[in-house]
Amino acid sequence: MEEVRVFCPATIANISCGFDVLGVALDSVGDEMVVRKTKETGIRITKLEGQDLPLETNKNVAGVAGLALLEKAEYTGGFEIEIYKKIKAGSGIGSSAASSTGAVWAMNHLLGNPFSKTELVQFAMEGERLASGVAHADNVAPALFGAFTLVRSYTPLDIVPIKNPSELYATVIHPQIEVKTSDSRKILKTTISLENGIKQWGNVGGLVAGLFMEDYDLIGRSLEDHIIEPIRSILIPGFNSIKEETIKSGALGCGISGSGPSIFTFSKGEETAQKVAEAMKKIYKNIGIDFDIHVSKINTQGIKIIN
Amino acid sequence: MEEVRVFCPATIANISCGFDVLGVALDSVGDEMVVRKTKETGIRITKLEGQDLPLETNKNVAGVAGLALLEKAEYTGGFEIEIYKKIKAGSGIGSSAASSTGAVWAMNHLLGNPFSKTELVQFAMEGERLASGVAHADNVAPALFGAFTLVRSYTPLDIVPIKNPSELYATVIHPQIEVKTSDSRKILKTTISLENGIKQWGNVGGLVAGLFMEDYDLIGRSLEDHIIEPIRSILIPGFNSIKEETIKSGALGCGISGSGPSIFTFSKGEETAQKVAEAMKKIYKNIGIDFDIHVSKINTQGIKIIN
Repeated sequence: MEEVRVFCPATIANISCGFDVLGVALDSVGDEMVVRKTKETGIRITKLEGQDLPLETNKNVAGVAGLALLEKAEYTGGFEIEIYKKIKAGSGIGSSAASSTGAVWAMNHLLGNPFSKTELVQFAMEGERLASGVAHADNVAPALFGAFTLVRSYTPLDIVPIKNPSELYATVIHPQIEVKTSDSRKILKTTISLENGIKQWGNVGGLVAGLFMEDYDLIGRSLEDHIIEPIRSILIPGFNSIKEETIKSGALGCGISGSGPSIFTFSKGEETAQKVAEAMKKIYKNIGIDFDIHVSKINTQGIKIIN
Repeated sequence: MEEVRVFCPATIANISCGFDVLGVALDSVGDEMVVRKTKETGIRITKLEGQDLPLETNKNVAGVAGLALLEKAEYTGGFEIEIYKKIKAGSGIGSSAASSTGAVWAMNHLLGNPFSKTELVQFAMEGERLASGVAHADNVAPALFGAFTLVRSYTPLDIVPIKNPSELYATVIHPQIEVKTSDSRKILKTTISLENGIKQWGNVGGLVAGLFMEDYDLIGRSLEDHIIEPIRSILIPGFNSIKEETIKSGALGCGISGSGPSIFTFSKGEETAQKVAEAMKKIYKNIGIDFDIHVSKINTQGIKIIN
């Protein structure tokens, strides 16, 4: 096989209590990429549509992630990449992760899958390092594994795939405002109270248990964040109203997607997820902020081949 | 029914990363209690063998927990309690929790089970408040529910029963030294670094996932504590050697039981758990500290009726 076209899902990271460790992949929001083997070595981004991003290999997250793979591969050729971005950069739903994971997944596929998914996560993390300065894994892991993933540890890297309840839907709204990842990192405190820490790991335990038991109420009760959300939500206009109204509309829980500004909710069933979308839209229409909105089933497969 | 005899299991709380939230019940270590209905109201401790503890109702954890239940019960009579202590007070394996849960479970049983397990946890927490000054739930919850339990939240109280892998065994050693709960609380810091917090909730997520998936390696990898153990282990002579040697002997992980001084390990299979016990004994024999040691399957039932 010489060429493959893939769907690269958007992802929600920092799921409420699961800051830096829990992420999930979406089913109906994502980029497309075409990756093609070439005789000459190295990686070339030959097309990039939908976003104004650099084509230079070492300035593009897909290029950098691909180079990390190429360095470890027993392969003398190279790759050409076409990227069709549908996820906006800076939206907080894993735009850079979609590109970097799509590149390494497709390359691995074309080479006959010499690398494990965890190795692919490591290559893709180099793309994340380029995008945000930090090689985090909580977007790239769900994009590669699908469904919910836990980054139990970074050293060594330990990715735990978590079971996905079959009726779970996400509703994500992206208000068209700019929140710089560096700003949203900067305002975080480097210490937290032990008391809030205990609440947080109680909720992480509850959320993971709820996912395994398909206990939607427990999932909802566990979608609390006593540490990050109270600080970061200040940067997102209307966050508190969105949270209040989506819960009233039946959402299990609501939080900041990644480092924002997107806001996610989970619901049981598509009907509720659509109702929640209406509640979200109404608030940003009233405030007068433009937005994109996505209602999506959870993606249990991760990156996949399309025609 | 007018009388019941129950087995009240010992419990391990503060399971490594799960400080204040994760506990587990043991199968072969525990107290016995006889609880009997009386016509006259109130609660009387009529016998207390095995430990030198107060018989006065309002100074005894079983008495105090029982009074908390009696206050909410539609019942005009009272109860007599006989306590046969086998768990030493101050050992760190839930001695007070065994007595307080045994009392309320047996009373509830004799009254036809008007209260839920979570309500019983709340009554038993009053016994914990008497014993340690803090109404914690991480020993009483597993004693009542059996197996592993997560205290997701205290306000409101939310107990999550966690699946138990069938081949899991605990080995617990109790060095005969006194560590006051108040001392072991006092040396804890009230703040922690966000970095360690993230590690801790990553491990809690991993441990809960490992229990649900019966993934013994993941359970082992997740039995890390970056926050409490480095501080509290200073109070327990030989802790680091015990940890090192038990892991070498095949234990999945090793940590402080409750607030110490007992040290617990988990193993896959009884044979390994016995080998681990030998490694533990050897160390305390060399140091010259007396000890009790227990090898036990996980108790999946909690308190139970015996003849």
